[in-house]
Amino acid sequence: MKSGSHFLLAARQCEIAELEELARTGELVGAIGRFIHALQRERGISGVFLGSQGRRFAQQRLQQVAACEGAEQDVRAQLDRLDTATSHARNGARLFGRVAVVLHGLAGLRPLRERVAALDLPASEATAAFTRLVAGLLAVIFEAADAASDPQVTRALVALFNFMQGKEFAGQERAFGARAFATGESDAAAQQEWAHLIESQQACFAIFAEFASAEVLQADRASHDPAVLAQVERLRRIGCTARDGRLDPELSHAWYEQCTLRIDAMRSVEDRLTTRLREVCEQRIAQARAELRDQRALLESLIAQAKAGEPAGSGLYGPHLERSVLELVQQQSLRLQAMSDELDQVRTSLNERKVIERAKGLLMAHRNLSEDDAYKALRQMAMNQNRRIVEVAVAVLSFADMLPGTR
Amino acid sequence: MKSGSHFLLAARQCEIAELEELARTGELVGAIGRFIHALQRERGISGVFLGSQGRRFAQQRLQQVAACEGAEQDVRAQLDRLDTATSHARNGARLFGRVAVVLHGLAGLRPLRERVAALDLPASEATAAFTRLVAGLLAVIFEAADAASDPQVTRALVALFNFMQGKEFAGQERAFGARAFATGESDAAAQQEWAHLIESQQACFAIFAEFASAEVLQADRASHDPAVLAQVERLRRIGCTARDGRLDPELSHAWYEQCTLRIDAMRSVEDRLTTRLREVCEQRIAQARAELRDQRALLESLIAQAKAGEPAGSGLYGPHLERSVLELVQQQSLRLQAMSDELDQVRTSLNERKVIERAKGLLMAHRNLSEDDAYKALRQMAMNQNRRIVEVAVAVLSFADMLPGTR
Repeated sequence: MKSGSHFLLAARQCEIAELEELARTGELVGAIGRFIHALQRERGISGVFLGSQGRRFAQQRLQQVAACEGAEQDVRAQLDRLDTATSHARNGARLFGRVAVVLHGLAGLRPLRERVAALDLPASEATAAFTRLVAGLLAVIFEAADAASDPQVTRALVALFNFMQGKEFAGQERAFGARAFATGESDAAAQQEWAHLIESQQACFAIFAEFASAEVLQADRASHDPAVLAQVERLRRIGCTARDGRLDPELSHAWYEQCTLRIDAMRSVEDRLTTRLREVCEQRIAQARAELRDQRALLESLIAQAKAGEPAGSGLYGPHLERSVLELVQQQSLRLQAMSDELDQVRTSLNERKVIERAKGLLMAHRNLSEDDAYKALRQMAMNQNRRIVEVAVAVLSFADMLPGTR
Repeated sequence: MKSGSHFLLAARQCEIAELEELARTGELVGAIGRFIHALQRERGISGVFLGSQGRRFAQQRLQQVAACEGAEQDVRAQLDRLDTATSHARNGARLFGRVAVVLHGLAGLRPLRERVAALDLPASEATAAFTRLVAGLLAVIFEAADAASDPQVTRALVALFNFMQGKEFAGQERAFGARAFATGESDAAAQQEWAHLIESQQACFAIFAEFASAEVLQADRASHDPAVLAQVERLRRIGCTARDGRLDPELSHAWYEQCTLRIDAMRSVEDRLTTRLREVCEQRIAQARAELRDQRALLESLIAQAKAGEPAGSGLYGPHLERSVLELVQQQSLRLQAMSDELDQVRTSLNERKVIERAKGLLMAHRNLSEDDAYKALRQMAMNQNRRIVEVAVAVLSFADMLPGTR
């Protein structure tokens, strides 16, 4: 018959198994981060290549495609290492579902590149295709963060996810601005969208700052080159305030370069964040193993004591042993409760994204929109009402009951 | 190299593994329900036995102890069947932690019964000891509900948990009223506490009604004996409105009997709820298995078609296959998203309890109170302010930052 001590130790072993799974997921997350960065560069380069009718970045594009392919192989190798058969992951189904979407998207990369090489599609379409792939990869990281049940690991994953998402908005801004400068046009609608891309970055970096460790924040501050930031801000001001809607196409090059310097600098912070994630996993595993060892030793010595001398009490064990075991059980119970509470608090930051996803799904189903268009509709509402996207999403969901065909 | 189809099928297999684990947990939950019912009876009988100085229910008590021991053996057998080594449970650590608390509590049952037999403790203390054990058992069911990630199963577990918790409040009311009638006293404070026990039951049964299936609700309505309910309500009115605080001790017997009839009738609904839980698990497993089979067959036939005739496309597969796989991936993705949204909605009802637990933990840590006293403090605040306990708990938590020694 299994005893209370058995379940006490089993609870601890569950924690360890989950932490080990998280460590493996952490490796995948790191590989995905490097791949996203390579795709972001390829997206930017392909946009300039297509926008210039193949005159600029032809050589860089080929180099970047090769770099991207290498990074893709690393991701695939990590995916192969994932144990899909006996996963302990809390939401294996959702994580694997996201991976299936990504792998399907990757199958489309080769034809996409062939069309880019043949100048056979508009720059905006190529950008959108890369952006969808990056969004799919970010969704994998989001599920990993949402699945983790250790508060410290979740904290590290939430910081990493938001940093990556912020960097992705920065990449989208680079592409958006490059097109605006290259075409020489920036009307009121474009300026509003530009401002929204800047705000979206700031919102992500604010959450990152809330959850990142002091040491990562230090690395983040050190990565900012004031000269680059000043240039980016100057070009943003020009792009976002052009009264007559005209921009100097000559600035396109400078914009692209300064944005690239800024984004490449973010890459080093991302590396610190993945290292941090690995360290947290390792520390927590070592800690949980040490605690399991201590707990097991304590229980064994208590039982030995009880057998050796303690007079038989009225309970199943002697009264002394009973009190000691009760203390262990209560400590563990309080610890798990505290962890669970902390986890709920950390996860709150993930809920905003879920609300937006749910509102997007509602618009897709109800208005028969594509995912991109549903998001754009939400963003447009947010811009029109001068509210945050999440606020608009909450409003959309609160009207859900009034829409036909929804519960 | 693992393909998108591989992860598509792996996601489905994860769902099945989790559902199978839920089905096993469902068996445990059923055994716990029967054990709780037996403990509730033993609590009531022991209270009357002690209150009457051993004159009443001596024989019934011995019979009930035997029944309880049988139900306990069933729970222990189910616990032995739990796979603590390779659990897929989303929160194995918390579930096993709760089980450890319960097993420790069970070790105290024998000494408790010896003291009851020897009339060696006050009735209120015996009642409190049984109540603590029942609370521990209910916490196991709560964790099972919180761990489930299938919305339909969660729905069935939430209905069951809330019915059981409501029934437990009914059992506490029976004990409370029996003591009040037996002592012949019911002052204003006692009347307020009594009213609170009634409200707590109603809140639980309201959540039960929200999540139970139509057929269970039908069984619930059929279980209500209007004559019994009329008697219970009449005695409640007498107990809760006695102007001079005096009660007729003669009514103690009738109160106990009518409450027992009411609570025993609830047992049949509880049985329907556990049957329903098992049915839902079985249906969902059969459904998921059929879908996995269909999906696998579809993928295989698509790949065979592609190999046989379809001209080599530009992608990894031919364009026809690619579209079909994309559709599958998108369908699965939307389905998982919808399930996850539905799950969040069902779980909302579990969050109130978590908020109360968290506030309780805060009071225990900050004011150095026992768990019972922390709950009583919350309930007293709620009664004084004429608010629901959960509202008071939210208020307590919002002051948490201002308390010394808390984050």
